[in-house]
Amino acid sequence: MTTIREVAKLAGVSVATVSRTLNNSGYVSESTRKRVEKAVKELNFYPNEVARSLFQKKSKLIGLLLPDITNPFFPAIAKGVEDGVNQRGYSLLLGNVEDDAEKESDYLKIFEQNNIAGVISAVQGSAAKLNNMPLVLLDRVNSHQEYAVHSDDYAGGKLAAQAVVERNPEKVVIMVGPKSVAGSAMRLAGSEKVLQESLVPYEVFQTASFQLNLAEETAERFFEQHPDVDSVIASNDVYALAVMKEAIKRGMNIPEDLQIIGYDDMPFSRMMYPGLSTIAQPAYQIGYQGAELLCNILEKGYAHENHIQLPVTLKLRESLRKKDLDE
Amino acid sequence: MTTIREVAKLAGVSVATVSRTLNNSGYVSESTRKRVEKAVKELNFYPNEVARSLFQKKSKLIGLLLPDITNPFFPAIAKGVEDGVNQRGYSLLLGNVEDDAEKESDYLKIFEQNNIAGVISAVQGSAAKLNNMPLVLLDRVNSHQEYAVHSDDYAGGKLAAQAVVERNPEKVVIMVGPKSVAGSAMRLAGSEKVLQESLVPYEVFQTASFQLNLAEETAERFFEQHPDVDSVIASNDVYALAVMKEAIKRGMNIPEDLQIIGYDDMPFSRMMYPGLSTIAQPAYQIGYQGAELLCNILEKGYAHENHIQLPVTLKLRESLRKKDLDE
Repeated sequence: MTTIREVAKLAGVSVATVSRTLNNSGYVSESTRKRVEKAVKELNFYPNEVARSLFQKKSKLIGLLLPDITNPFFPAIAKGVEDGVNQRGYSLLLGNVEDDAEKESDYLKIFEQNNIAGVISAVQGSAAKLNNMPLVLLDRVNSHQEYAVHSDDYAGGKLAAQAVVERNPEKVVIMVGPKSVAGSAMRLAGSEKVLQESLVPYEVFQTASFQLNLAEETAERFFEQHPDVDSVIASNDVYALAVMKEAIKRGMNIPEDLQIIGYDDMPFSRMMYPGLSTIAQPAYQIGYQGAELLCNILEKGYAHENHIQLPVTLKLRESLRKKDLDE
Repeated sequence: MTTIREVAKLAGVSVATVSRTLNNSGYVSESTRKRVEKAVKELNFYPNEVARSLFQKKSKLIGLLLPDITNPFFPAIAKGVEDGVNQRGYSLLLGNVEDDAEKESDYLKIFEQNNIAGVISAVQGSAAKLNNMPLVLLDRVNSHQEYAVHSDDYAGGKLAAQAVVERNPEKVVIMVGPKSVAGSAMRLAGSEKVLQESLVPYEVFQTASFQLNLAEETAERFFEQHPDVDSVIASNDVYALAVMKEAIKRGMNIPEDLQIIGYDDMPFSRMMYPGLSTIAQPAYQIGYQGAELLCNILEKGYAHENHIQLPVTLKLRESLRKKDLDE
């Protein structure tokens, strides 16, 4: 790799002058600038990010915290984040936290040691642990003081319940996500409002986690507690799939004996049979706009909008009964 | 953050002496070492990775190249890589290449600019593009000169075909993955050997990609070309799911009219109904052992084994017919 020393030598100037020229800092005469630029071009020199980082105190790295990379919702977010930061010249340091507070702290320490410019996090509670590091939260947002991109959880909860209410439910159970995840409570509130207004009785089943590896045992426990359920508003698509599989194992037909709606719209939800009806969150967009928001904060010091809320949409597939059959 | 200057001041020595002490390089007297260590402890100083990187020329960062983060096989690999490198004190720079050669080159340049210590890549052909950077290839491996961790594709291809042969196939089609992916040819060779020895006629359907977003249109094309297929050996689980969905859309029953086996065993393959029979690759282990291999190369300069091949296993689920019904 070409070094700054070689550039200085070829241009006949000091290393400090090359540095001033490249960083546009301090006085450099026009003729010197030209000599340096010519040398840079001739030697095909591109500045080392590490040296630049030490000089500027901040690197071109952004830390990304995800709660569970094996839940397909998060790779879709990550893809959006990656495309967004790359476009602005940044790269991603990956931290897969797995709802483990210690792992999260370790990653934040590693991020700090690498002089990262900022953090994008889909992990609840990251904000409290950062020392004045620019942060954008994705998906799991609770305070209105923070920079955040998320979708409209309250509207999503309402949409899901409305779709069930219109399809002649007999016994509704709402699976609600972990209490520590802010969106869960909003979705529940939205669903409860619709069910209460429609005078449809329902019960609530609390799940302890969104982790994929706990989905199957949670589904078993779900049917033990609610053996006569006929309509499920699931906490996310992964848990909806596990409930569908368990229902089929128990000899129930979908959607005749059990109808179900998920949340997220991960790619597999449309690929399986019966296709899973769900509330689609724009995962890629959440990631991409989160990246743009952070880059704006880093480069301009502010952003026009500090809370971006994206709309959700209802995807109707085979896992819900047809309206006209029931009415 | 505490700086090395503050440590030097408290210890009453120069910055260079602190640096020599922390890096175990050059002479430092025993009493000086003790003073520096005491100051480091008192000030809770931990060396900045960027400064260390500049000093040592290499950072504690490892670049990870993935072909498609939305295919659940790769997040599972990434999780293994991440756990493996973290345990040895490294962090991951993420590069999601999406089978795009230009994106791959861009990432390799970014990796180099960040003084990464090495690369772990599940992208075919990365080797040729690296300038003497330590590299471990995962999954998609073609040359025996390279450091690599992969599973036994030939055995996997044989296992998949054997499972189909034992279940009374009438018209077998092998979906073969992209020619550019080395494992595809090995799997095909394994499957063909079994089918030829069993005198079962078959056809081969070439897929252009493993990308998730092309799976559904590929499945449509598959049935246009092979409308009378009754047994499919699919190129991976994602494509197997897309074929199952398309088959059900066309009114076929699984496994009675169409039986199918996938490849990978991603978490969703067991969660859907009918459950997808498949050849399980130990994705997490591939990632974890790849990380260990690279860390050994980085720290010791060599590894005992430069090619690690992991076994595959057959997972029988509802998508294949029962043996005893057919015989």
